[in-house]
Amino acid sequence: MRASIISIGDELLIGQVINTNATQMAQMLTSIGISVNTVLTIGDDGAAIKEALQQSLAKNDIVLITGGLGPTKDDITKKCLCEFFDSELYENAEALANVKRIFDARGYELTPINRQQAWVPRCCTMVNNDVGTAPCMWFDTKNGKVVVSMPGVPHEMDYLMRNKIIPMLQEHFSTGAICNKNILIQGIGESFLSDLIEPWELSLPSNIKLAYLPQSGMVKLRLTGRGDDRHAIDKQIANAVSKLYPIAGQYIVGEDMENLPEAVAHLFTTHHLTLCTAESCTGGSIGSKLTALPGASRYYMGGMITYSNEAKETLLGVQHTTLTQYGAVSEATACEMAAGARKTLHTDYAIATTGIAGPDGGSKEKPVGTVWIGLATPAQTSATLMHFGDIRQQTIERACNKAFSMLIHDINNNQQ
Amino acid sequence: MRASIISIGDELLIGQVINTNATQMAQMLTSIGISVNTVLTIGDDGAAIKEALQQSLAKNDIVLITGGLGPTKDDITKKCLCEFFDSELYENAEALANVKRIFDARGYELTPINRQQAWVPRCCTMVNNDVGTAPCMWFDTKNGKVVVSMPGVPHEMDYLMRNKIIPMLQEHFSTGAICNKNILIQGIGESFLSDLIEPWELSLPSNIKLAYLPQSGMVKLRLTGRGDDRHAIDKQIANAVSKLYPIAGQYIVGEDMENLPEAVAHLFTTHHLTLCTAESCTGGSIGSKLTALPGASRYYMGGMITYSNEAKETLLGVQHTTLTQYGAVSEATACEMAAGARKTLHTDYAIATTGIAGPDGGSKEKPVGTVWIGLATPAQTSATLMHFGDIRQQTIERACNKAFSMLIHDINNNQQ
Repeated sequence: MRASIISIGDELLIGQVINTNATQMAQMLTSIGISVNTVLTIGDDGAAIKEALQQSLAKNDIVLITGGLGPTKDDITKKCLCEFFDSELYENAEALANVKRIFDARGYELTPINRQQAWVPRCCTMVNNDVGTAPCMWFDTKNGKVVVSMPGVPHEMDYLMRNKIIPMLQEHFSTGAICNKNILIQGIGESFLSDLIEPWELSLPSNIKLAYLPQSGMVKLRLTGRGDDRHAIDKQIANAVSKLYPIAGQYIVGEDMENLPEAVAHLFTTHHLTLCTAESCTGGSIGSKLTALPGASRYYMGGMITYSNEAKETLLGVQHTTLTQYGAVSEATACEMAAGARKTLHTDYAIATTGIAGPDGGSKEKPVGTVWIGLATPAQTSATLMHFGDIRQQTIERACNKAFSMLIHDINNNQQ
Repeated sequence: MRASIISIGDELLIGQVINTNATQMAQMLTSIGISVNTVLTIGDDGAAIKEALQQSLAKNDIVLITGGLGPTKDDITKKCLCEFFDSELYENAEALANVKRIFDARGYELTPINRQQAWVPRCCTMVNNDVGTAPCMWFDTKNGKVVVSMPGVPHEMDYLMRNKIIPMLQEHFSTGAICNKNILIQGIGESFLSDLIEPWELSLPSNIKLAYLPQSGMVKLRLTGRGDDRHAIDKQIANAVSKLYPIAGQYIVGEDMENLPEAVAHLFTTHHLTLCTAESCTGGSIGSKLTALPGASRYYMGGMITYSNEAKETLLGVQHTTLTQYGAVSEATACEMAAGARKTLHTDYAIATTGIAGPDGGSKEKPVGTVWIGLATPAQTSATLMHFGDIRQQTIERACNKAFSMLIHDINNNQQ
């Protein structure tokens, strides 16, 4: 099964909006065994839309389109689909009820232009968009292929794909049962990991495939199993995973997790531990990444962003002499920051960052990219020196990942 | 002038990496008057690469390619370009010197595989990549079109585009002088703004075009002027901007700024004011957005992330009775948080957030999405109630933008 994604919208071509939709859709399609062949981004232009459809359908079984479904004049996707499929628009009762429901809930009056949102081509199957006013449209072509048009609003696309289109595609193309299992690996590079687990990989049943998904500071392994019986595949995968632990268990952070903050949340919650943060050079990024996940309040108590030296003293109790003697970016300051935060907020763990994100502030002894990361645990307080290079955003990102890794490792090693 | 972008990489098609490169490149091309026609994302597949090149060249003057230039086997862009242009690879001396320089600086030994990075097709102009080992390649076609191949590493692409390719394209296609001016507008919706400034827009000289770039919580207006004389265009634009102030001056946050945190930084720095933050539901996002910009330490002293009630009391001095009587998400708590942070960190301003980001924790009186934003200024302390809907990430994002707006408005109104 091969799919093509067409992203429609002038805002994508002038660089105003990043095309995150295509990334999300590609992830979901890949996870059910449909490979994405191309992503084509075009403007709100009738000829371009019809040509893209023609070309994509020639080479793929599935074409997924997002964008151009708004009520304004420049949104012409629906009109193009009508022309392409030689159909006409009609007012769909279910879609109209949905538009009315949403306008009622917001207390807005339904104008004639907004009512047009409920018009769809006769030849399509209307797929109700429970979270927005633009309906989703499913077209079956004569030769068994499928075209789906969805709104470009990210959370509407996400809802429709997850809850409607992915299950419909699985049924339509009887893709059989496909099961995925993610294993998050941390603390070993991709090439070393690959050498370590090669014999295990070669011993996997032929219907189970392994993919490496390296990300900043970690590697995600994805096992994908295919077959007729979901239960049997799940058993095969569980068996394979259990054999991985004796080989690489020390690097396994968790199963079915997407990223390091999720692993941190899982470990702290499971072990009933609490955490606080003391951030200088990361400026709140560690806190914001942890609290981006629901349920953070179960283990994360809060923290201090101590950008100035005064804040380090006032909020964290860092000694004035430590700052003058060793500087704000030093092992001593990182340790006092972590210990001070842990003490003030009465948590089991505290993590602290202090460094030079740049572009200014570097020196020969402490070049831009120098970061000390302090860790205070129930057992001890220590700090680790890192050099992350001279790109500000990258230094902040890497410092966060290193902080998460240090927490994960300490808990894995010391909290049994 | 029309351009097409080809993004190469399997990691883009499985949804592992978001294609931010295409967005950045589209922005830069648009700013010099080259319009992007399509963005085509394909895998590391020889046939697909050559077909994409053929199709893109047929319809565009410029084709920019990123990705597939690494030293490993799956990176085949260079081989494909050789075949497409009927050329052969040779070791370029300047490129080799660059690779050696980078390996020396990192203290790595240059292996034969890494040395291959310096091989480029004979028919191309090698454009030295000062920030990475993969050279950039510029191809002139027989009919005056241009193909450029760049590495996909975002900061290398960014460096090469900004410093080399954009100036080279401007010279090659004698695009003439193009000047851009951004004006950041806040506090009025796009459609109201459009009505307000329509007469002004209609009075613009014919060589000056206006674009609306709405973003979360604000609108960016971009004036683009074209002509032969850069100095004359700059004067025309300055004249147009000066006429905009009497009409919409109250909504203008600043000129030549990209986003609200930049406007906050500009205002606080210009007025020599200091700021601190007290974040509950935004969990550090306000701090991280402010400190993502270089120079934040000039005005941002730090802040507290007070996720738990205990942290609100301990770090901000919120009264225990306020929390029990009114709850953590209340006007009183938001005010005490802002006032407490301002007092502790001795700043001119403090901004505080407390709300229910969801998905849990909502009630009938305080549904998910309820956020109080507290503002403490040299003159007073107050709080504003907002309802941001039930999507966690959106609520956090909108709360940050509202906080930035409140700071901008207060300074614009009260600090002359």
